[in-house]
Parts: sequence; C-alpha cells; structure tokens
Amino acid sequence: MTCSLEDARRVIAAAETEALTIGQPMNIAVVDAGGHLVAHARMDGARIGAIDIAINKAFTARAFDMSTADLAEHSQPGGPFFGIHSSNNGRVIIFAGGVLLRRGEQIVGAIGISGGSGEQDERVAQTGVQAL
Amino acid sequence: MTCSLEDARRVIAAAETEALTIGQPMNIAVVDAGGHLVAHARMDGARIGAIDIAINKAFTARAFDMSTADLAEHSQPGGPFFGIHSSNNGRVIIFAGGVLLRRGEQIVGAIGISGGSGEQDERVAQTGVQAL
Amino acid sequence: MTCSLEDARRVIAAAETEALTIGQPMNIAVVDAGGHLVAHARMDGARIGAIDIAINKAFTARAFDMSTADLAEHSQPGGPFFGIHSSNNGRVIIFAGGVLLRRGEQIVGAIGISGGSGEQDERVAQTGVQAL
Amino acid sequence: MTCSLEDARRVIAAAETEALTIGQPMNIAVVDAGGHLVAHARMDGARIGAIDIAINKAFTARAFDMSTADLAEHSQPGGPFFGIHSSNNGRVIIFAGGVLLRRGEQIVGAIGISGGSGEQDERVAQTGVQAL
Repeated sequence: MTCSLEDARRVIAAAETEALTIGQPMNIAVVDAGGHLVAHARMDGARIGAIDIAINKAFTARAFDMSTADLAEHSQPGGPFFGIHSSNNGRVIIFAGGVLLRRGEQIVGAIGISGGSGEQDERVAQTGVQAL
Repeated sequence: MTCSLEDARRVIAAAETEALTIGQPMNIAVVDAGGHLVAHARMDGARIGAIDIAINKAFTARAFDMSTADLAEHSQPGGPFFGIHSSNNGRVIIFAGGVLLRRGEQIVGAIGISGGSGEQDERVAQTGVQAL
Repeated sequence: MTCSLEDARRVIAAAETEALTIGQPMNIAVVDAGGHLVAHARMDGARIGAIDIAINKAFTARAFDMSTADLAEHSQPGGPFFGIHSSNNGRVIIFAGGVLLRRGEQIVGAIGISGGSGEQDERVAQTGVQAL
Repeated sequence: MTCSLEDARRVIAAAETEALTIGQPMNIAVVDAGGHLVAHARMDGARIGAIDIAINKAFTARAFDMSTADLAEHSQPGGPFFGIHSSNNGRVIIFAGGVLLRRGEQIVGAIGISGGSGEQDERVAQTGVQAL
C-alpha cells in the first residue's frame, strides 16, 4: 500500500485551500511509502528556498516515521538526535511541517509544507493529511 | 514574466494525457524562468530514479536555454561540451526530454519528462509545451 | 524585473568603498531575482573561505525573501527554523550579511557580504543596497 | 605572486569587450594562484547554467596547470584522463574556455569563460589573458 498520484493531488488540493485561507503561499510536497516524491506544487509567490525544504520535510517524516515537529524536539542541542540534520546528504529537516500519511495503521507516505511560520506549515500539513 | 502554478498544471495535464495515450507512466516537472521547480507529478508506476531526471531536464533546458536533445548532440565524446553533465553539481541531464517554455520570444520556464524512451519523453514534453 | 550586471557593479562599488572605509577586505556578491550569481568581487586580502559564504548569503536572502540577519533569529537552537542551514545542499547561511535588493515593492535580487564581523558585513551590505 | 582584484577586473573588461564584439553574452571568471575566485561577471542574457562552468573552467586550468582545451584532448573516452570530470566534487570542466594567467614564467591564476560555442569561449578567454 502506498500513495497514488490521485491521493497526492487530493492531499495537495486540501493543503492549498488552507494556505489560501491563511493567505500564505506554500510549497506542498507528497512522498510515497518509499519516501520518493509523488507530486509537488509551489503556489505563486512561495519562496524558492522552500522547495527543497517541503520535499525533504515529507522525506524526513517517512524516513523516521514521525512528524518533523516531533523529530525537532529530539534534535536540539543536548538532545538524543542532535546533529541528525546533517545526515542523509542534508535531506533531514528538523522543524514542523512534515507529517505522515496513513491508511488505518499503515503508513502510505508523507506530506511536507514549507513557506510560512512553523505553526502555519504544520496547520496546512495537518489539513492535507485529513484529505487522504 | 515567468510560469505560474496554473500554467504548470495546464502543461502537466497535457503531458500526462499524452503519456497515457502512449501507455508509459512518466515523471513530469515544470520549472520557472529561474530554473526553480513549480510543479511535479509522478504518474503511478513511473520509475523513482526518473524523479530527479525529470526535474533536472527542466532545469537543464533553462540553464542553457536549449532543449536537452540539442544539448545532447554537443555533449557526446569528442563534442564541444563533452563533460558538461558533471557540472552544476550533477544537475545537467544530456538526453532528450527537457524543453523550454516560451511566451512569444520570452523564455518563461521549461518542462522535463522522464520515464520512457528518449523519443517518448521528447514527444510528451513537446505536447506539454504546446499547452502553455 | 531583475538585477542587471550594471546594477550589480554599482552595488558592489558602493559596498567596496564602505569596506575600504572600515578597513576590512570583503567578498561581495550579487544575485538576480532567480538567486543566480550576477557578479562577485573578492577584495585583496579577503578570506578565501568567505567566497562561498558571500555568494550563498545573497542566495539565502533571495531564497527566503528575508535578510540573513532576520533568518538567524529564527534559526537558533529551539527556534522555529533550527536546522535550516543544512537544507538546500548547504547553501543556506544563517548569519548577518545577506540583504534583499528591491525596486519599489519588487525584489530584484540580493547582496551577500562576507569577510568581517557580522556587524561589519551587515553594514557593508546595507551600503550596497542603497546604491541600487 | 598572485592575481589581484585590479588584475582580474582588467582581464574581465577585456574579455567582456571581446564578447560584445562577438555578440554573445558570457560568464567571465578569474581565479587566483590558489584556484579561488577573485571576480566573476555574468553579462546580461548569459546562461545561468554557465556560471558554475565559467568559475570551474578557471579552477580546472589552475588545478591541472593547463588549459581546459588541452585537458579535453586527454579526457576523451580511451584517453589517459577519461573520467577526470567527475573528480574534485564535479569541479573539473573538460572543454575549451579555461586558460592560465601568467606573469613571465609564473602562474598567477586563470580565466574561465562560458556562454558561447567552444571556439567563442576560447577566443574570449585568450583576449582576457592578453590584458593581464
């Protein structure tokens, strides 16, 4: 079980609608159960440096099977995973906005959002998750 | 002038329809005038190694303002640009499937297709271009 | 709208004059609206490790549409973007010296300065900005 | 002995004039005796993929103390250095346009040109060299 392109587009559409409601253009990415990109959309005006971050928040959530917000807690100086952000060729993002996609118990992929504040990114990601 | 998300989606939709006609799942990517990803879609069953290639075919077309099919001719052993594929941190792809998007004389971005044969990729890219 | 070579040279000349006044040789870089290098100058005696930093401070400011000094505040341990410095293939610099170039409301590029203290770099960058 | 910023600017100005004569916008880069960038200029309209190539042609000429045109001959399939373009983290460019800068017998740096055909790049580089 994984995430189809149709699934990814439904998730992205929901996230995009939420980002429009907030009024903050976002990069939105969905990866499959293998952590590989299924679809990406950069809303007009969203930051170009956030392309890489959105894709890699989704990758990170799936790579460690936890949200990037949770990973962030463990990755601060003094924490058990401090330094993890330089592993995996720099693909590990340790702040909010990357969330797993599940069908029942099964992880089928992840969504990554980047473009706003950490709270905005997380809220948009959660909206996307609910549309799966 | 650059390529909006709406433009990119129209281009991707046309390319996707052509890929379905051919019966070969593809990765489809569109970059803006700065070479930065606007949108990407991986059709169900398309190869995961082709994600990077589709995105970077689009980047390459914009980076050198020529199609990757044309660049390929100059980049063979003994040709004037042999070796260019290792420049730009490995982002330069030197085979068919990356084509510029223009509005009149103006370059506004590029499309990159990867998933089938060179001829299939190029045909799908050209179909996308016509939808801009 | 973007930043021409003539614009970049005017910005660099102003920054260079300020660096000479301070008495600290600098690397000075200007990128366009796409984040791509337009011009770079390393003043005699400026540090070679600062070449990459100046270019990437300019890239970073444009990538996130904020100064690197502002980004620094959000990127400290415990902050909402801690870890962002390892994204974008190591091109994100999170200390002062990268500032956006604007024409009216429009972002047309960015300047990056590296070679002195954070305060010196920022002062030289701001002088460059005013010459656009 | 090395190449000063003033030297680099004189070399770049000469190369730029030649590129204007040819009518082909170029990226022009000068590195010092250590192979490190002293100055870069991208003429308006020059390709963004050629920034990296111009800088690294100059690096390559100094790294191997020969022109990139000469290196190209030895780096073709079957040649003694085939594959060298993937060494040095992808910084080695193996086609014409990178030429050493000398004062008498002494190597003081190198120039790298990218933006036109191999012949155009080489011609512009040679013009720059003569201005040292």
